[in-house]
Amino acid sequence: MPAATTTAPHPLDTFFSPSSIALIGASRDLEKIPGRLLSMLRKNHYPGRIYPINPNYGELDGLKCYPSIADVGAPIDLAIVIIPARAVLGALEQCASVGVKNAVIISSGFAEEGGDSAAMQDAIVALAKKTGMRISGPNAEGFYSEAQHVAATFSPTVDVKPGAVDLVATRRRAAIVAQSGGIGFAIKHRAKALGIAISYCVSAGNEADLGAGEFLEYMVQDSSTDVILLFIEGIRDVDKFLAAARRAAEIGKPVIVTKVGRSGAGERAAASHTASMAGWSAAYDAVFARYGFIVSNDLDEAVAIAAVLTTSPLPKGDRVAVLTVSGGAGIWGADTVSMQGMQVPELPEAMQAEIRKLLPSYGAARNPIDVTAQGVHSGGLQKSIELLNASDDIDAILVVLSLFSDTRMLFKQAELKPVIDAQRKPIVFYSYTLPSSFARATLAEAGVVVLSGLTHAGVALRRLVDYAKFSLAPPVDADAPAPDIAAHLKVTKLSEHDSKSLLRAAGVALPEETLVTDKGQLDAAIARAGLPVAMKIQSRDIPHKSEVGGVRVNIATKGEAWAAFGALLDSARQHRPDADIQGVLVGPMAKKGVEIIVGTMLDATFGPMIMVGLGGITTELFKDVIYRPAPVGAAEAAAMLGELKAAPLLNGFRGAPKADVQSLSALISQISLLAAQFKGEISEIELNPVLVHPEGHGVTIVDALVVLHLSPLGRGRREAPGEGPSVD
Amino acid sequence: MPAATTTAPHPLDTFFSPSSIALIGASRDLEKIPGRLLSMLRKNHYPGRIYPINPNYGELDGLKCYPSIADVGAPIDLAIVIIPARAVLGALEQCASVGVKNAVIISSGFAEEGGDSAAMQDAIVALAKKTGMRISGPNAEGFYSEAQHVAATFSPTVDVKPGAVDLVATRRRAAIVAQSGGIGFAIKHRAKALGIAISYCVSAGNEADLGAGEFLEYMVQDSSTDVILLFIEGIRDVDKFLAAARRAAEIGKPVIVTKVGRSGAGERAAASHTASMAGWSAAYDAVFARYGFIVSNDLDEAVAIAAVLTTSPLPKGDRVAVLTVSGGAGIWGADTVSMQGMQVPELPEAMQAEIRKLLPSYGAARNPIDVTAQGVHSGGLQKSIELLNASDDIDAILVVLSLFSDTRMLFKQAELKPVIDAQRKPIVFYSYTLPSSFARATLAEAGVVVLSGLTHAGVALRRLVDYAKFSLAPPVDADAPAPDIAAHLKVTKLSEHDSKSLLRAAGVALPEETLVTDKGQLDAAIARAGLPVAMKIQSRDIPHKSEVGGVRVNIATKGEAWAAFGALLDSARQHRPDADIQGVLVGPMAKKGVEIIVGTMLDATFGPMIMVGLGGITTELFKDVIYRPAPVGAAEAAAMLGELKAAPLLNGFRGAPKADVQSLSALISQISLLAAQFKGEISEIELNPVLVHPEGHGVTIVDALVVLHLSPLGRGRREAPGEGPSVD
Repeated sequence: MPAATTTAPHPLDTFFSPSSIALIGASRDLEKIPGRLLSMLRKNHYPGRIYPINPNYGELDGLKCYPSIADVGAPIDLAIVIIPARAVLGALEQCASVGVKNAVIISSGFAEEGGDSAAMQDAIVALAKKTGMRISGPNAEGFYSEAQHVAATFSPTVDVKPGAVDLVATRRRAAIVAQSGGIGFAIKHRAKALGIAISYCVSAGNEADLGAGEFLEYMVQDSSTDVILLFIEGIRDVDKFLAAARRAAEIGKPVIVTKVGRSGAGERAAASHTASMAGWSAAYDAVFARYGFIVSNDLDEAVAIAAVLTTSPLPKGDRVAVLTVSGGAGIWGADTVSMQGMQVPELPEAMQAEIRKLLPSYGAARNPIDVTAQGVHSGGLQKSIELLNASDDIDAILVVLSLFSDTRMLFKQAELKPVIDAQRKPIVFYSYTLPSSFARATLAEAGVVVLSGLTHAGVALRRLVDYAKFSLAPPVDADAPAPDIAAHLKVTKLSEHDSKSLLRAAGVALPEETLVTDKGQLDAAIARAGLPVAMKIQSRDIPHKSEVGGVRVNIATKGEAWAAFGALLDSARQHRPDADIQGVLVGPMAKKGVEIIVGTMLDATFGPMIMVGLGGITTELFKDVIYRPAPVGAAEAAAMLGELKAAPLLNGFRGAPKADVQSLSALISQISLLAAQFKGEISEIELNPVLVHPEGHGVTIVDALVVLHLSPLGRGRREAPGEGPSVD
Repeated sequence: MPAATTTAPHPLDTFFSPSSIALIGASRDLEKIPGRLLSMLRKNHYPGRIYPINPNYGELDGLKCYPSIADVGAPIDLAIVIIPARAVLGALEQCASVGVKNAVIISSGFAEEGGDSAAMQDAIVALAKKTGMRISGPNAEGFYSEAQHVAATFSPTVDVKPGAVDLVATRRRAAIVAQSGGIGFAIKHRAKALGIAISYCVSAGNEADLGAGEFLEYMVQDSSTDVILLFIEGIRDVDKFLAAARRAAEIGKPVIVTKVGRSGAGERAAASHTASMAGWSAAYDAVFARYGFIVSNDLDEAVAIAAVLTTSPLPKGDRVAVLTVSGGAGIWGADTVSMQGMQVPELPEAMQAEIRKLLPSYGAARNPIDVTAQGVHSGGLQKSIELLNASDDIDAILVVLSLFSDTRMLFKQAELKPVIDAQRKPIVFYSYTLPSSFARATLAEAGVVVLSGLTHAGVALRRLVDYAKFSLAPPVDADAPAPDIAAHLKVTKLSEHDSKSLLRAAGVALPEETLVTDKGQLDAAIARAGLPVAMKIQSRDIPHKSEVGGVRVNIATKGEAWAAFGALLDSARQHRPDADIQGVLVGPMAKKGVEIIVGTMLDATFGPMIMVGLGGITTELFKDVIYRPAPVGAAEAAAMLGELKAAPLLNGFRGAPKADVQSLSALISQISLLAAQFKGEISEIELNPVLVHPEGHGVTIVDALVVLHLSPLGRGRREAPGEGPSVD
C-alpha cells in the first residue's frame, strides 16, 4: 500500500518551504536563542533570502540588518519572531501590513502564563483571523525541514557539526509533528541517529493559530513525507485533526502517535504546560483506532516502528522468519516475535534443505535459522534472506546479529544491497550488542536501519502486520433524518421506563413491558409479558433501583406478583419517602445470553462516543471495554467486538453456540447514531445488560438509562464504565 | 538492604581468579579464536602466569610455549582448552594428572552435535566426577573478570582499544551469568556502555560439569558482586540453582533473570541449541517469584534495572517525583511512572514553595517539577534533587533531561556529585535525546548512569519498588510425616469418589457425600446431605461426567432424586456401555462462594507445582492463574492469591463480603504439601471448583480429581489449566 500523495500546491507551502525569511529579533549573541536562530538557518544551508530585523545592528554575520520589517521592501514568506512578549503583537501587525505570509513566534510568555499574557495571545489569534497571515506559536520551538534546508528553530539538535556526515538508511521519509518542541526534536534526533530520513519536524507550541491538526494535515498531503510521527498532549483544532486523520487512512500514510497526559499527574501537568485539557485518553485512543493510527507510548519504540515503515513494504501476514548467528539470540528473537502474537513457523522441508546447503553442520534451518558465524562468512546470510524473501510461506524476516565492531562485518554490504533492493516484505535488522557507527553507516548504504532494541523490533513488526490489515470503516451519515423523540426530552431526569420509551420512539427494539400504576392493571401486564416476570420500581428520583429494594426477578406466579407489587412500592416509599413514584415496570424474564454493556457518552474533545464491554463484574475487573467515536456502522461495531479480550465468549466459547454478533452490532450502530444525532440533548445512554442470544435469536436490552444534558446527573464525559449512574 | 556477602574462600575462586593459566591450543594466528584467546588475556592485563601449550611453537608473543601441559612443571589453576573436539578428552586427562584445578573448554562439537560427539561429553563429565577437576563447557565462550583482569574468552567484546577509557558510573558491581556466550557478552557490552561496573561475565556452554546454577551460586557468595544478571534457556543443575536462588533471597542480592525458550519456536530452537529442554516457562516463573527474582524479557530493560540497582538504594515506597526541563517530557515521565502503577503525588505545599524559589515564574513545582532550562542554569536541578531526597513524602526521583550535547551540560557535575553521594532513595536520570558520551562520562563522575529509555527507567523503578517489598516465604518442610494414603494408590485411575476418598484420607475437609450403589441407599444418603442435593455418576472409566449426562444439580425432592438416580445410570450405560460404574455420588448443594480452581502438576525441571486461579470461564479467557513450586505455606498461598488479577473478587468486590482467604490459603498449602510428599505417586490434583465463602465460613471443594503416575491420563507436566482431565 504505497502512500499516494498529491502534488497540488498547499497554502502552508510558503510556511514550510519559504523563499524568504525575516528574523525579527536577530542577534549577534550566539549563546542566546535569538543569535542561535540565525546561526542555525545558515549552518543548515538555507537557500532562500534571510532578512535579519533589529534596529541595533546595521549588519549581522555578513547580512544586511533592517531596523524593522517595513524596511525590507521585498516579499517575505516567513517571519521568525523572537522578541519580548509585549512587543510581539506590534511586530506581527507590521508583518501583516507589509504582506508577510506566515510567522512563527518563538517568544514565550503568553497563554501558558495566564492573565494579561493570555489576552495578548487572544489578540494574536484575532490578528491571524483578520489578516489571513498564518501564525505558529507562540512559545514554539519552530520547525526544521531536512529536504528544504530550513532550520527555523533554536533546537540544538539541528546544529551542524563540521565534518559530520548524515546517516541516511531509508528510501522513504518521516515527518514529525509535536506539540512539545523538546520532544519533537528529540524524536528527530533519535530518528536521524538510526538513519531515518526526515522531511519535516515541526513543534506547535501554544497553537494560537496553526495547530497540530493542521500540521498533520500538511504532512498527510506532502509528497516528501511517507510516515508521520505525532506527539500530542491534547488536540485543539479538532476538525482539522479529524479530517487529516481520515485522509491519512484513505491514502494509506501511516501515523505513529504518542499521546501523553494519560495519567492524573500527566494530565495535571499538561493543563498547566499547554494551557489546555489533555482530554480523556480513551476518547483519543478511540479516534486513533478508527483511523488506524499506530499508538506508541515509548520514544524508541515509535522511532523503531518508523524505521521499519520507511524501509520496508507492509507484510501480507504474520509469519516471521528469525535469522541469527547466535543460538541464544535466535531463541530470544523467536520468543519476542511470538510474544507479540505473531508466528515463527517451522520452514517447509524443501526450504530447510535449501538453507542447510548454506550452513555448517551445527547450523539450524528450521526457524529460527542459525546461519552461524561460519555460514555468514561464506555468504549464507544474504542467500538465506534471498530465499526467505522469495518464499510465500514467510511474511517478514527478523535478522538478529552482533554489529558492535568498529572495523568489520561478517558479511559483505555490497552483496546484501541487491537482496535488500529486491525486498518484497519487511526485513528488520537487530543487533544484540550495541551497533557501532561503522555498522550503521555500512548497512545504511544497503538501505538497512539497524535496530538496537529486540522488543521494539518485535513490536514494530506487529504494528506493521496490524496496519496492513487495517481498513477504514465507511463513514456513517450522522446527518441522516433523526427520529422524532422531542416528546421524551422535556423532563430533566429519565427513569428506566422513560429511557426505554425514548429508545422505543427512536426505533430501538425492546421487550414488551408495562408500567403498572395500579394493582388492577397487573394481571393484564403479566398476561402480556408471560410468566415468569421481572418487576422493577420506576421513579425519576431513584436512579439506583436495587438500593431501595426495587427489583424482583423470576416471579413465577400471579400471587407472587401481587405480593411483589405491594412490597416494591412499600420499600421504595420507606427508603425514599420524597420520591415521585411512576409505578412498577412489569416485563418478561429474558432468555439466556452473553451479558454485554453498551453505552454512549460525550467527550469534551471529540463529542459523542460509543462504548461496548463484556457485562457483569468482568468489565470492571479486567477493564475490557472498547470505545469509538459515534456514530459507527455495523461493520465498525463488529470490529469493536472483535477487539474485546472477551471476544471468544461471543464466538462459541467452550462449545457454547455462537452469539448473535450481527444483531448486537446493529444495536451498537443504532445507539451510536442516536447519541450522535442528539448530542445536543443526550449526554449518556447506558444499556446494561444487553443479553446476546445465540445466532439468529437477537439481543435483549434488559435495562436502560438515558441521561439528558439538563439532568443533574449529566456530565460532559465519562472516565470509566460503571462510574456513571448505574443501571440496575 | 545492602548485600551481605561472605569472604570465605570458595572452591571456584581458583576458576574465576586463577593465579596461573595454561592455554591449550595457543596460536599465533590472531584472526582465529585460539590466537585471539592469548591476545585477549594479555590485552586485559592478566596479572598471573600464562603457559601457552602447543607443540608447534617454542615461543608465542614473548612467552615460552610448552609442548604439553605435563611439561609446564608448575601449579596451574585454570586450563583454557581450544583444540579439536577429538583431542579434548586426552588433554583433560593430562591436565587432571598434573593437578590442574579447573578447565574451560572453548572447543565445540560435543552434545550439541549428538551421536559420538555427545559420548565424548559424557566422558568429560565422568572425568570431572572422578578427578574433582572442575570443567566448564564444552562449547563455551569462557568468562571475563573485570575486577581480576581475567579475559578467559574469545568474545570480541572484551577487546581493548588503545586509549579507550572505561566508563564506570556505579559504586556497585554486576555479575553476568549466561548460558549463551553471545548474549552474556552482549549484556556485558551494553552494561559497560552505560557505565555499570562488572565483576564477572561467565558463559556456561554445554555445562558438562559446571552449570549456570553453580555459577549463580558463586556470584551470590562473591563479595565483589552486588547484582546478578542471569540469562538462561533451561537449568540443568537444578538443586544448585535452587540453593543459590534461596541464598540470594536470604541475603538480599538481587537477581535479574531473562528466561528464553518461552514460545513454541523458542523452545524448539533451545532443544537443538543447548541439547536440553527449555522447560515449561510457568514453572520457571513460579520459581523466580518464590525467590524474588526480577524477571525481564528485554536486554536493555534488564540492564537498566541493573543500572538502577548498582547506583541506588532501594525505595521505601512508590511515590515518585519527576523532575524535568521540558514540559512535554515531564508529562511523559509522569505518565510512564503512573502506567507502571506507581504514584506521582502532588508535592506538599511547603515543598512546592521551597522549589518555586529555585524556578523562574514559568516553572512548575507540583510534580512533575519543571525546573526549566533557566532554573537548571542557576543550580535549581541539584537543589531540587536535594530537597526531594530529604523529603519523607517522596520515595524515588526520576530526572528527565536532554543530554545529547558533546560539549556542555546545563548544570555543574561538581555540584551534583555531593547531592548524589548523599542519596537516600533511587535517583534515576533519563535523557530524551540520545545521551552523548560526554554527558555519560561527566555524569559518571558523579555516580550517575544516564538511561536512554523512558519505559525502561519506569520499569526499573517499579521493579525496585517490588523488590524492596519482597520477602522470602518461610520454607515448608516437605519431609514432615506424610498421611497414610497407601490404600488409595493401588488403582491406575481414580474417579471423583476415589479422588475425594484419597483427599479425605490425607486430611482434606470435604462435604459429606455418599456413594450410592443401590436405590435402597438413596434415602439415607439424602438424609445425610439434606435437600437440595447434587448427584453425579461415578466411574473410573468416565473422566468427563457431564459428557455422558452424568451430573444433576439442585435436586429438590426425594421423588426427583429417585428419578435422577435411574436416569444417571441409564445415560452412563447408554454413552459408555463398557464403563465400570461405581455408583452415584450424592451430596449437598454447596453454599455460594467465589469460584476458584486449585491444582497441582509435576514439572519436568522443578517437580511438583501448585496452581491457583479464578474458576469458571475467566481462568481460561484471561489466563489468570498463579503457580509456585510445591509445597507452599499459607502465607505464600495468600501471596499467590494477591497476585491474581481477580484478587479484588476475594476482597469484597462491589460491596460483596470479603471471602475466606485464610481458609483458601490453608487449603492451597495443604494440597501443595500433599503433592510434594507424594510426587512419586501423584502427578496431578485438580480441585475445580473450590467455592470460597464469606470470611469465617470456609471453603467447599465441589469437585476433585487426583491423577496417579500409573494412570494413562497422567503426564509429566501441564501446559495450562483446563487442558488436563477436566473435572465436572
